[in-house]
Amino acid sequence: MSPAFASNGPAVAALDWGTTRLRAWLIDGGGKVLAERRGDDGLITAREKGFANVLEGHLVAMGAPETLPVIVCGMAGSRQGWIEAPYVAVPAPLGAILRGAAQVPDPKRDIRIVPGLAQRLAEVPDVMRGEETQLAGAGLPAKGRHLVCMPGTHSKWVVVEDGAVAGFGTWPTGELFSVLAEHSILKHSLGEHPAPVAADNPYFRQWCERALGEGGDVTSRLFAIRAAGLLQDLTSQDAAACLSGLLIGGEIASARRRYGAGDAAVVLIASGSLASLYSAALDLARLAFRAVDADEAVRAGLIEAARENGMIARTGAAI
Amino acid sequence: MSPAFASNGPAVAALDWGTTRLRAWLIDGGGKVLAERRGDDGLITAREKGFANVLEGHLVAMGAPETLPVIVCGMAGSRQGWIEAPYVAVPAPLGAILRGAAQVPDPKRDIRIVPGLAQRLAEVPDVMRGEETQLAGAGLPAKGRHLVCMPGTHSKWVVVEDGAVAGFGTWPTGELFSVLAEHSILKHSLGEHPAPVAADNPYFRQWCERALGEGGDVTSRLFAIRAAGLLQDLTSQDAAACLSGLLIGGEIASARRRYGAGDAAVVLIASGSLASLYSAALDLARLAFRAVDADEAVRAGLIEAARENGMIARTGAAI
Repeated sequence: MSPAFASNGPAVAALDWGTTRLRAWLIDGGGKVLAERRGDDGLITAREKGFANVLEGHLVAMGAPETLPVIVCGMAGSRQGWIEAPYVAVPAPLGAILRGAAQVPDPKRDIRIVPGLAQRLAEVPDVMRGEETQLAGAGLPAKGRHLVCMPGTHSKWVVVEDGAVAGFGTWPTGELFSVLAEHSILKHSLGEHPAPVAADNPYFRQWCERALGEGGDVTSRLFAIRAAGLLQDLTSQDAAACLSGLLIGGEIASARRRYGAGDAAVVLIASGSLASLYSAALDLARLAFRAVDADEAVRAGLIEAARENGMIARTGAAI
Repeated sequence: MSPAFASNGPAVAALDWGTTRLRAWLIDGGGKVLAERRGDDGLITAREKGFANVLEGHLVAMGAPETLPVIVCGMAGSRQGWIEAPYVAVPAPLGAILRGAAQVPDPKRDIRIVPGLAQRLAEVPDVMRGEETQLAGAGLPAKGRHLVCMPGTHSKWVVVEDGAVAGFGTWPTGELFSVLAEHSILKHSLGEHPAPVAADNPYFRQWCERALGEGGDVTSRLFAIRAAGLLQDLTSQDAAACLSGLLIGGEIASARRRYGAGDAAVVLIASGSLASLYSAALDLARLAFRAVDADEAVRAGLIEAARENGMIARTGAAI
């Protein structure tokens, strides 16, 4: 092993540890990814197997040194997780949020978990865990007001002003899709296992466009999907596209109503098919946007958290 | 048995035959109720046992004569029911709808099923079955425009103009409540068996009032119930009241946005706890309304259907 390679050995392990999934990376002092692991041992599994055991398993599999420090974000820091990293109340600067990482008592490693955010407003209380790290890694400009869209099971829309999280909201779009598809009368229209919705499906586009004009009201059109199935012989695939378009269009209309469109382009942090569907929907909404890959954003955010907590140096050399 | 009593014997049997429940009445020629039965043998059960068997069981139990005619409304007339009573397209006069009752082939009885309504609009296709009969029995004035609210699993709002159904919409408020309470992340806030929500619960009123100001957007506040549970130690009973208030307030705001409030009082056709909750919500919305009992309305509608189909006479004497 050459000295040059040794100096680029892992400086920190970074984990995005959610409810059902986990992703882990070994990062060198310059922020370069040396190894990656993905697993289904999220919070639910880790509560059974032990968080330390699950972590060590992944670190060993990646060949991590025994004393390598570890930075974690996500639900592992919730009350039901490993240790609670108490919520930071917004408004809060992104740097301060990352520096609020909670230390896990561990005999050999420096393990820290990035805290989630709490919006303690009587009218719209809200919480997030994990997305704050994506935000920190999204390359947002240090100045100005930026509206960020992070689609998912519980989509988050965040207003970032001059590098601080000013406020945010949650739209449970992904969860509504699953729950309605599986447990509501719409299951008769969507069938047992609806195929993934394509962003160019004309039903997706049509129902999204209609929902965009309704200010976030989606409940008035849900039953119309069932009625269209009865009266217009909608296929199950097209019914799924209707529901997806309705919910995503409704989310965007609602978020725009709450936060306004603003001058700057919306920052869309997403990956895979969600990135395609939301890109199409934002186009239909005539909202300018800049797309950031969600996987890259969370990794960059974890590296930034490692830097803010002094686990790796800003200069790019391991400390 | 005196002749006077005999002349007031049953003239028709009336059934409100839904998906999961059935109610049956014996009615005399003057529209008076002589006997009543309630059962859990709705469409789902009747498909197994046979519709004719279920009907005869209830008729025999009420002592109905062998040739007594029968008028039916509800899902028994759907494609999955006994025989399909094809949808009548709106706009349609209430009298014409009732006269469109489909005849069930039966060797001894005259059995007819009131048709449902279809709104064949590309943008908001919709269907109803059973509510058309409630409408016909709600004592709506023959003239003018009337907005009718019929809360339930799938709440219907109907515009009736000069005695004709002009258009309608469905808000799946009751179904959303159950599905979200049982299958979404809100189950952690609402608990296993949330208690019935009281109309004077302050959380019901507060969340209803907020939703009334949001034009039908409810999805932006769903997750706030979970967050309030985490941040503000909401009890499961109060969380259920939040969800109920949010969904009912959202429904009213959405329906008002679509149909306008109009000059005449809203006609609320409901029974029991739904009548209380919607009365409270309409008060919060400052919408004048007139309440009609849903059980009485459907019975009156079935009697009207029997008259329109010549099964009993208008004059009040059995024919």
